[in-house]
Formats: sequence, C-alpha cells, structure tokens
Amino acid sequence: MEDSLKPMDAEQLREYGHKMVDFIADYYKSIENFPVLSQVKPGYLRELLPDSAPNQPETLQDVFEDIHRKIIPGVTHWQSPNYFAYYPSNSSTAGFLGEMLSAGFNIIGFSWITSPAATELEMIVLDWLAKMLKLPSEFLSSGQGGGVIQGTASEAILVVLLAARDKTLRKLGKKSLEKLVVYASDQTHSALQKACQIAGIFPENFRVVKADFNSNYAVTPEVVSEAISHDLSAGLIPFFLCATVGTTSSAAVDPLLELGKISKVYDMWFHVDAAYAGSACICPEYRHYLDGVEEADSFDMNAHKWFLTNFDCSVLWVKDRNALIQSLSTNPEFLKNKASQENTIVDFKDWQIPLGRRFRSLKLWMVLRLYGLENLQNYIRKHIRLADQFEHLITSDPRFEIMAPKTFSLVCFRLIPPADDLDNGYKLNYNLMDAVNTTGKIFISHTVLSGKFVLRFAVGAPMTEEKHIEEAWKVLQEQATYLLRRNQDMSQSSCLS
Amino acid sequence: MEDSLKPMDAEQLREYGHKMVDFIADYYKSIENFPVLSQVKPGYLRELLPDSAPNQPETLQDVFEDIHRKIIPGVTHWQSPNYFAYYPSNSSTAGFLGEMLSAGFNIIGFSWITSPAATELEMIVLDWLAKMLKLPSEFLSSGQGGGVIQGTASEAILVVLLAARDKTLRKLGKKSLEKLVVYASDQTHSALQKACQIAGIFPENFRVVKADFNSNYAVTPEVVSEAISHDLSAGLIPFFLCATVGTTSSAAVDPLLELGKISKVYDMWFHVDAAYAGSACICPEYRHYLDGVEEADSFDMNAHKWFLTNFDCSVLWVKDRNALIQSLSTNPEFLKNKASQENTIVDFKDWQIPLGRRFRSLKLWMVLRLYGLENLQNYIRKHIRLADQFEHLITSDPRFEIMAPKTFSLVCFRLIPPADDLDNGYKLNYNLMDAVNTTGKIFISHTVLSGKFVLRFAVGAPMTEEKHIEEAWKVLQEQATYLLRRNQDMSQSSCLS
Repeated sequence: MEDSLKPMDAEQLREYGHKMVDFIADYYKSIENFPVLSQVKPGYLRELLPDSAPNQPETLQDVFEDIHRKIIPGVTHWQSPNYFAYYPSNSSTAGFLGEMLSAGFNIIGFSWITSPAATELEMIVLDWLAKMLKLPSEFLSSGQGGGVIQGTASEAILVVLLAARDKTLRKLGKKSLEKLVVYASDQTHSALQKACQIAGIFPENFRVVKADFNSNYAVTPEVVSEAISHDLSAGLIPFFLCATVGTTSSAAVDPLLELGKISKVYDMWFHVDAAYAGSACICPEYRHYLDGVEEADSFDMNAHKWFLTNFDCSVLWVKDRNALIQSLSTNPEFLKNKASQENTIVDFKDWQIPLGRRFRSLKLWMVLRLYGLENLQNYIRKHIRLADQFEHLITSDPRFEIMAPKTFSLVCFRLIPPADDLDNGYKLNYNLMDAVNTTGKIFISHTVLSGKFVLRFAVGAPMTEEKHIEEAWKVLQEQATYLLRRNQDMSQSSCLS
Repeated sequence: MEDSLKPMDAEQLREYGHKMVDFIADYYKSIENFPVLSQVKPGYLRELLPDSAPNQPETLQDVFEDIHRKIIPGVTHWQSPNYFAYYPSNSSTAGFLGEMLSAGFNIIGFSWITSPAATELEMIVLDWLAKMLKLPSEFLSSGQGGGVIQGTASEAILVVLLAARDKTLRKLGKKSLEKLVVYASDQTHSALQKACQIAGIFPENFRVVKADFNSNYAVTPEVVSEAISHDLSAGLIPFFLCATVGTTSSAAVDPLLELGKISKVYDMWFHVDAAYAGSACICPEYRHYLDGVEEADSFDMNAHKWFLTNFDCSVLWVKDRNALIQSLSTNPEFLKNKASQENTIVDFKDWQIPLGRRFRSLKLWMVLRLYGLENLQNYIRKHIRLADQFEHLITSDPRFEIMAPKTFSLVCFRLIPPADDLDNGYKLNYNLMDAVNTTGKIFISHTVLSGKFVLRFAVGAPMTEEKHIEEAWKVLQEQATYLLRRNQDMSQSSCLS
C-alpha cells in the first residue's frame, strides 16, 4: 500500500480531492441532462458489478468511469432543478463545504471531551436558529432546554416520545405502558407511528384523529379533546400530542395554540413537527404559523429539507433537556471523563439514539454565515413565488383543479376526471404521474386526500428557476392531453365495439 | 444572493470546493502540531462567537479564519497518528472521497425508487464484505437475509433487539413485554443497555452476566445457561443474547459457538457485536475469532472504526430480513410507488430507525476498490504489529503491567501501584492518564477491569507508524517517572512531618 494509495496522506488527499471536486462540479453542470427519476429496472446494478471485492487496488479513474456508467443511471437526482417530488432535500455550496470539513475532521463527538468545538458549536448555532425562528427562550441552551441536531425528524420524534413515555412511567410505574395513548392527526408523518412501534406503545393506543377537507387537513382541537376525554373515561393515559406545521401530504398547519392548551390541561407532552415548513418561518410574514409554539415541549425542523443544509440535519429543541437525558443516558466506565463527571458540559450522546455523532453543526454554521439571514429569507420567498406561479398555471387550465390550499411551496392538484369516471380520477392521475415521471424531464409525487389521488408539486430545489416551472407545466400539459385523448379514444372504441 | 454565493452553482462549488480540499489537506499536513486532546475549557467557544447569525453573508475567508482560530483549538484530533484513545475512527483518502460524492449527490435513499443505485450498491458491497469475512451464506442478500448500513452499532443493536422483541411478542402477545429477558456480559457495550431502555425492556430483565479475569473478560457459557434456567423457572422469557468479538474495555472475545448453541436451545435471538474487531477478521489468521457466527441471527461491525471508512458506517447483517421489516416498516400513501408495491426490491427505510438515509455505500465501495483486500489485510496487520511493539515496551519496564491479553490492536496496562497504595493504583493511573493527555502529545483512555483502573492504548489511526509508538512510550515513561517521584517525595515529606 506504501507505493500506491496510502490510508491517509495529505498530498494524496489533496490530489484526489481536487479530482473529486471537479467531478462533482461537472455533475451539477450536467445535472439537467439526466432523467430526474432514475429509469433503471430492479437488479440492474448486480449485472454490472463483480461478485466480490478486488484483491488488488483499482484506480480512481476506474471508479470514476463506473460512477458515470453504472451509478449515475441509478441515481434519482434530488438536486435537479426539475425535482418536485416529496419535499426538497437541499444541497448547497455552503452545506457541501460543511460536509467536506466534517468528513475531513472525522471526529466522533459523542461527549464534549471528544471535540468540545462540536458540542459547543452545535449549541451556539441552534441558539442562533432558534432566535431566527423566534422560538420561546426556554428552547435556548442558556436555560433548562436547548437544541440538538438529530439525523432525521423520525429520530427527533422518537427521542421526545421516549422522553415523554419515561417521564410518565416514572410517575405511574412502568406497567402503565399499556395504557399510554398518543394523539395525532391522520396527516401526521408516519415517523410517529414508527416511533410508537419502537417505544412499545400499544398499536390500539395510537389515536389517529381525522383531519379532513373542511379544515384544510388541519386537525380540529375539539376532535382531539373528545378523543382524550373518551380515553380518560376508559381508564387510559393520554401522554403525547403531536402537531404538524406543514404536513407531508398537503402542507397543512395544525392549530398549535389550541392544541398546546389541550396538552397543558391534560399534562401531555406537546411536540411540534415542522420538518418541512419550519424553514419558511424565518420570514416574518410566515412566522405566524408557529404561533403557539411557546406551548410546545419540543419543536423540530429539517434544515436538510429546505434550508440549504446537506442531509442529514434535523434540528430539535426541547424545553427540558433532563427529560431526554433521563431516557437516553448511559454512563459506562470507558466513556467517563472529568468534564462529564463535573457536569459542567453537555454530552449530546444522551440526547439521541446513537452513541457516535458527526460534526454536523459545521454545515449549518457555514450555511448561516455564508448566506446570512436575509438571503435565506429571500431563498424561501423565491420558492413560494415559484409555487404561486405553478398554482396560477394549474388554475388557468380548466382540466385541472387545486386539491388543497397552497400555504408554502407545495401545490396539490389533479386532473379532473370525467363525471362518470369509475375510480374518481385515481387511475387517471396515477397514470399522469407515471407518464410525466417516465419522461425523465421532471419528478413529482402523490398522496391521497379525502380518498382522491392527488399530485404533489413541491418547489424547493436550490437551482429551480421560473423556466423550470414553465417547462414542468408543459410536460404536465402534454402528458395530460395525451392521456385524455387516449382515454377518449378508448371509450369511443368501446362504444363502437 | 444572485451576486454573491448562490444556493448552488457548479462553478462556485468548484472554486470553493478546491479551497476546502486544500484546507483539509493542509490540516492533515499539520495535524501533529495540535494537542491531540483538545485543551479548551467548557464554554470556550461562546466567548468567541457572536450571539446570533449574521443578516448579511460573510466570506469563506472569514469562515476559514474562524475555523483556524476558534474551531480547531476545540477539536480532539481523532485522525492524529498520536491518537490512541477509545477505538480508532478511521478517515482515509478513499473514505473521504466517498463522503464527498455522497454529499454531492445528496440523495435521500429511503426507498429503492429514490435512487436505485444507493440501495443496490449497498446490497452488493455488503455481500462483498460478508464474503471477505466468510460470513454464513444466510447473511447474503440472495436469500432471506442481507446486509444494511446503519449509522452506528447502537442503532444496529437496537433494530435487531426490536426485531427479536416483536417476533417474540407476536407469538406470546404484547403483554408479555414485561417478562422478556436480555442476556449479555458486563463487558458488553452500553449500547445494549440503551437499546433495552428504548425498547421498553424492564430494567430488571436486562441480565448482565459477569465476565471476569479468569476468562480473560469473555463470558462463560455455563453462567449464561444458569441465568437462563433461573429466569425460566421464574416464569420469565429469555429472548435475546448478545455476544461481543472485541469488547470495548479489553477487546475480549466471547465464545460464539457455545453461546450460539445456547440461543438455539432456548429459541433466542443471537446477536454478535464485532464493532471494533470485526475488521481484523478479514485476515485468515484472525478469522477464527468469528467461528460460531454461523449460529448468529445478526452480526455487526463498524467499518468506520478500523476499516478506513469515514464515520458513519456500521455494517449489519441479518439472516431474516422480514423480522426487521415487520418491526420497522410503515407504508404511508405518500411513499408508495410501483417498485415497492410489486415487492421486487428492498426499501432500506424498513431496516432502520430513521426514514431518510445517505448514500453511504459509496464510501465503503471506494475503500474496497481503491485499497483492495490484500492492502486492507496488511493495514490491520500493521496496527496489530504496532500494538505488539507497544506491549513489548510495556513489559520491558518493570514499573508497568499488562492487564488483559492483547488480542488485536488494544493494549490494556497500568502503572503498578506500591503495595500499600490505598486505592490499588486507581488514582495513580488516573493521574498518569490525565498527565499524558494534558501534554497534548498523545491521547489515551481508560477502563476499569476487576475493580482496577486500567489504561487503554488502542492502535488504529491511519497515519500511525512505529515512531509514534516510540514517542508515545517516551511520553508515558516520562510522566510515570515524574508521578512516581512526586508520590515518593510526598510520602517522604508526610513521613517527615
């Protein structure tokens, strides 16, 4: 190995690193040439790669060629300006630099001592972001609470659910587990259901409250109150209520203030999941969607969605850090150290599921510094404007309809089915989605709202501009025209036969 | 933002990326100039950084200066060749390139469709690695099992514990949770205790079996059998047994074959945690430490420890993927897609705690290809040789003693206390550790074995050479000499007084 690539050598790292930077820059330069949604078939890669690792080293050139020929065809290009599926997953120059530096240091920041800068920068930067979002001061690290970077919103919701579970069980005894009830709307992310499965909440005690069209898919506090009263009279123990700001299906916003008050009345943990829409709330004109967050015990947003911070960076704040620590701490001898024993510092290992953790605050710090608050606000506003543009195009074509209010940068719409359509446009819209995604020109996704198949067009990729919206709309119109004509042809031919 | 740094722009990414590569290469070039263990005091960074994020963007030059002046003093240099604490956390040129590319694509590979290459490369590369480790064929993806990259060994042990828990509860009913018992030795990583806390295993049912000096800190099968029999007769339900190959404290190896047989007799899930020492088992001469792994239901090793793959990359194999999926899957409408519904592919979201996942297989693939099996074997052998060298130095100095057999690259030792030492060398060795770590020249850690404070010297950083071992030994000898002399002086002066 001494003659070829060493495990680590500064000059080799420099030489190879420069090549990789150029490779990635070239990728972004040509990103619009690839189908946004990968068009490969299941199992494609196994046919292209050998059965086992090589005995002898290969060259970086070999690897680059394979990435071009074998890997990139299997990549779905989340960074493409023509990506409108799910929710965005922002890469940015600043975020990328932060990832590089984090991989360069490659420290494992489980305890303060293992790299004090990692813990302290995270606390500082999360305070910065809390102030940008005007979160209540109890979420700042100066008090009993504080912020922590989790990998994903799923992990964030799991750790607060565990904290809430154990806080309740400490009072009532651990055999009460079977009586604990969790409340959320049917629009809540599946991460909560998964967290309940993991935490051993009985499935029949995961109370899914219906949020329908009449409330724009936000939950109504009365229905939650009713469910709680009913459970209480059945001898169950309500302990956790989750609200969402910007639901996954339609970006609906639950009424935080009312729900927060309910949670207080019944002494429940109140978690606010703003994974997607939290970012928008750095703009004064959108901040009101967070009104009521002062009632929350915990609040989470994904900086890796719509905030120019490369995945993963889910930002969680809690008011009572001890609740987390009491659930998640262990203190083995081999990790003990003076700073931890003296209790003057934070050890983030006790705020999360894993032990090891990367130096993720670097990328968020670099995003905040290299763009600055005003540019970040304008970045959000631009995407919301582009979504407005798309919504306008939809409403200008009578063949389409909007399916939910457009609150942020997500447009929910569908092709209106003929009145006699057997499945109320389900297949029609499924086929439209499949058709546009198969063109490779854009990638959109779907949901089901009130039983109807709904197309989701989420603006938020870093390089998306007006022209991409226009082109996306053209693709949609073309495929819709083609589909409707084919349907008509088929129904005519079936009439004739 | 248009005039300055754009959210994403290929040429800006190129320009800034090259600067960051040089910054990181320069860091590695000068890494030995920094104290290995950061010497800052708690709260140091808050005094150096502003209270809030800037409104206007700052320059990359500003950020680089702050990293030099404010961040690096707070970094503990895990990649320093003088880092011997805990276990290694390898960065490598290949692993770094993989991290860069993964951050470049920045895809979120939760389902196959979201980037088929991410899922398929992971399956292929984990098959490669399983073959290198000569794992049983049931762990290969061609059957009912397969490999999956987890973030950490903590997450790996949690997901298999959940799979085992739910498999048992499906048979016995969910109210049996309070009777479920987990078995492991007192040398098992605290990750298992944490996983039990999360999964709701009753604390009194986490059965910690003593592994002592007589068995070189490996667990003895008889003691496990006894504990199980005892619990069975008390009406409890043994369901999970964890063995370790290379414990955290002393790199002890539990007897897999015997433990595996016990797990079969009692129909328990058998997990093997080889987080650290698994890497060594790619060498034929160390593979025998895995004998018996064919009895395991799951096996985990951390490629991010001693296998040149940047953090995070914990590699987990299971024989029954459905057990994982039944515990961890959710299937919300917004994530449904043709490939998933047709069940022809793997969606790794159902094999892990989080939903989102990075394209981590790239770095492991690049490590395997750019180094090749033979170089990786030689890399391991070199560190074991360096640990032999260190052990030899320890045994050549009668003031020191070896505290556990050196099986891989970890040396457990201590300064022999005077016969009349009040705490049997606890304080003496604590002070020695503190003294050497405060020099900044090396970083070592500790554990407690049989009540004795033990120093851990773990070789495994990518740039460590013979000269670093010699220098480390010099630092240890100097500090020991100083400490012993001071102790002598103090005891003399107390005799005189």
